Amino acid sequence: MSLSIRNRIPGTVAGITTGAVMATVRVDVSGGRELTAAVTAEAVRELGLETGSRVNALVKATEVALATGPVSGLSIRNRLPGTVSEVTAGPAMASVRIAVEGGVELTAAITADAADELRLTAGTPVIALIKSTEVSLDAA
Amino acid sequence: MSLSIRNRIPGTVAGITTGAVMATVRVDVSGGRELTAAVTAEAVRELGLETGSRVNALVKATEVALATGPVSGLSIRNRLPGTVSEVTAGPAMASVRIAVEGGVELTAAITADAADELRLTAGTPVIALIKSTEVSLDAA
Amino acid sequence: MSLSIRNRIPGTVAGITTGAVMATVRVDVSGGRELTAAVTAEAVRELGLETGSRVNALVKATEVALATGPVSGLSIRNRLPGTVSEVTAGPAMASVRIAVEGGVELTAAITADAADELRLTAGTPVIALIKSTEVSLDAA
Repeated sequence: MSLSIRNRIPGTVAGITTGAVMATVRVDVSGGRELTAAVTAEAVRELGLETGSRVNALVKATEVALATGPVSGLSIRNRLPGTVSEVTAGPAMASVRIAVEGGVELTAAITADAADELRLTAGTPVIALIKSTEVSLDAA
Repeated sequence: MSLSIRNRIPGTVAGITTGAVMATVRVDVSGGRELTAAVTAEAVRELGLETGSRVNALVKATEVALATGPVSGLSIRNRLPGTVSEVTAGPAMASVRIAVEGGVELTAAITADAADELRLTAGTPVIALIKSTEVSLDAA
Repeated sequence: MSLSIRNRIPGTVAGITTGAVMATVRVDVSGGRELTAAVTAEAVRELGLETGSRVNALVKATEVALATGPVSGLSIRNRLPGTVSEVTAGPAMASVRIAVEGGVELTAAITADAADELRLTAGTPVIALIKSTEVSLDAA
């Protein structure tokens, strides 16, 4: 696959809740963590997803937010702790690479202002936050 | 213009930082708060945006996250405090209406699980969180 | 490809502007229209994208907004006119299928409230709006 989407997190479907329009798919990923993807119910049907299906969770870099402190009381389902390995900043945007616990690498595209304010640099511990509606699935 | 985008926050451009590709536009909104929109530099040029321009910040409901506690150390630039006025939940997704300080109404489409876990109900104080890359601008 | 991403629009790269972090890729799609994708500069390098490359523009259904009237003064780069072919509504969300001029089918997942308010039904003319930062590319 030759996708521009930077972030691909391999896992196994742990459960699916289907509504009239949308479905939430829980995915066990490496490091004993779980991701939730909110995708269309139609996509779940067409891909034949079921508990046990192998998938890659796909997330665009612009959809990854970062927290430097503890996170609680947040609607964002997906939280992957890791460590910043590299920051590349332009005038408007910054690209932050994160080594996530369990061996996955993520890239977050955030504003240069946010990277400054959070003093992100190689070695900073962070939690990568991803809204469920931003997670796509690739039936591997 | 009749848009499906639920959330429209009127304001005035307070400053623009332009990169080769992307630009961040800071918008003063009602309630003395500021929003940041990360849009293409081309959009800023074509709309003729400059400090003082009147705009509406537009945000799709699926792009609004909610926090029930204090937020710090977060890369998400845009944080609007308010109170939940209504929750409509299906099996997979929930739609949460929020009265934001300063008189704006927002809708957040989050997973039903998140709405449950945060025990969101009419009257719950929340902070609406919106990543800058999710904010579009309408040159009013 | 077995992707949950509903919307795939085939085209040819017409030009690339590269910044420090992000790049905008212009894609000629069917019907004589152009889409802009804002992806990381790293993705452009790794995929070897250049003018003339064949790509599919990929857009999650939750990232498609709809307008029922003429659109102007909007920072959203990508506008595809079409006609609603089907609406499926749940309590929180609605799925709207659109036949786009030029032969592509799109799905938009919007709030049920928005679908109601815009009185979307089979036959309604709409413009599908997609923010550049929400477009991913698949090097076909």
